Amino acid sequence: MGRWPTGSRERLQQAALALFVEKGFDQTSVSDIASRAGVTERTFYRQFGEKREVLFDGGESLQLAITEHLSTSPPDERPLEAAERALMHAATEFFSDRLPFARKRQSVIDANPELQERELLKMASLVDAIRDSLASRDVPETASRLAAEMGVAAFKVAFGRWIDPANGRSLADLIRDCLDEMRDVAAR
Amino acid sequence: MGRWPTGSRERLQQAALALFVEKGFDQTSVSDIASRAGVTERTFYRQFGEKREVLFDGGESLQLAITEHLSTSPPDERPLEAAERALMHAATEFFSDRLPFARKRQSVIDANPELQERELLKMASLVDAIRDSLASRDVPETASRLAAEMGVAAFKVAFGRWIDPANGRSLADLIRDCLDEMRDVAAR
Repeated sequence: MGRWPTGSRERLQQAALALFVEKGFDQTSVSDIASRAGVTERTFYRQFGEKREVLFDGGESLQLAITEHLSTSPPDERPLEAAERALMHAATEFFSDRLPFARKRQSVIDANPELQERELLKMASLVDAIRDSLASRDVPETASRLAAEMGVAAFKVAFGRWIDPANGRSLADLIRDCLDEMRDVAAR
Repeated sequence: MGRWPTGSRERLQQAALALFVEKGFDQTSVSDIASRAGVTERTFYRQFGEKREVLFDGGESLQLAITEHLSTSPPDERPLEAAERALMHAATEFFSDRLPFARKRQSVIDANPELQERELLKMASLVDAIRDSLASRDVPETASRLAAEMGVAAFKVAFGRWIDPANGRSLADLIRDCLDEMRDVAAR
């Protein structure tokens, strides 16, 4: 679950992603990946429990970074602002140097309905984690849930903009912009 | 895809849901369902393409009712208000007399991760449909997407409250309340 994959782990991830893009996710075997990375299949399975984990293993660390940041936010901060700051923090922490990876990863996911379902499940789990983290700070339950839903929706939209080839801005800036637009949309 | 299943279709749906609750979704076969409903398996497959469709066949009609309502909304209506009215309309149209069904259905889905993924996919598809419908009315793309995300998030939270045994209010009222709470959460 390390943030900075090194050595065989990094090679495996790069090899896997290149193959997923070239051949498609379902058509790529663990044997293909290990062979391209110049390691054994056993090394693959030591690093990743299964093929899908190459794409999803960062999700838990991301979630943890967000909820840890939330747990240190000022107790009187409003829930959406707390969620916003935590998401921007995690964006800077996790994604600053991951744009090429994120673009390739997204193209693989877009081509595969099962991977899309898995990604949706990951996002739903992030909503639950943010909601629980806010609720533990005495934010009422519905407000916690709604702020979590709004924060994650903004994150998703910002992420889509971030990986757009025409974009040159940081993910954190785009998250802030999306939440500001959401505030405009919500204003009567 | 009829809203008011009658005859064998209705019997099949009730039999299936009762069996899913009793035995679990995976442990229930189409043969069990047909036998409980007093029809042949062939009749089941004529009504539902597969077992999962018993739970998800209303999704397309719901989506269509929402987007059709959106297409008739006043052109100067703000996107979140348009989404809100369409969701409230569909809630009244589709769910007024479906509370016992909705409760059982949710308990089946909550017990099965694959069904949860399917439900998430259905909700993501609803977000896309609302976004497209708003964007076709010249709402800017990001505002369309954000209003769609917020509307569906409110729908989900309202739905959870609606099926709560302690609730006595209508789904439409709960959607309106959730969107008002969302506006409060969004206000700085």
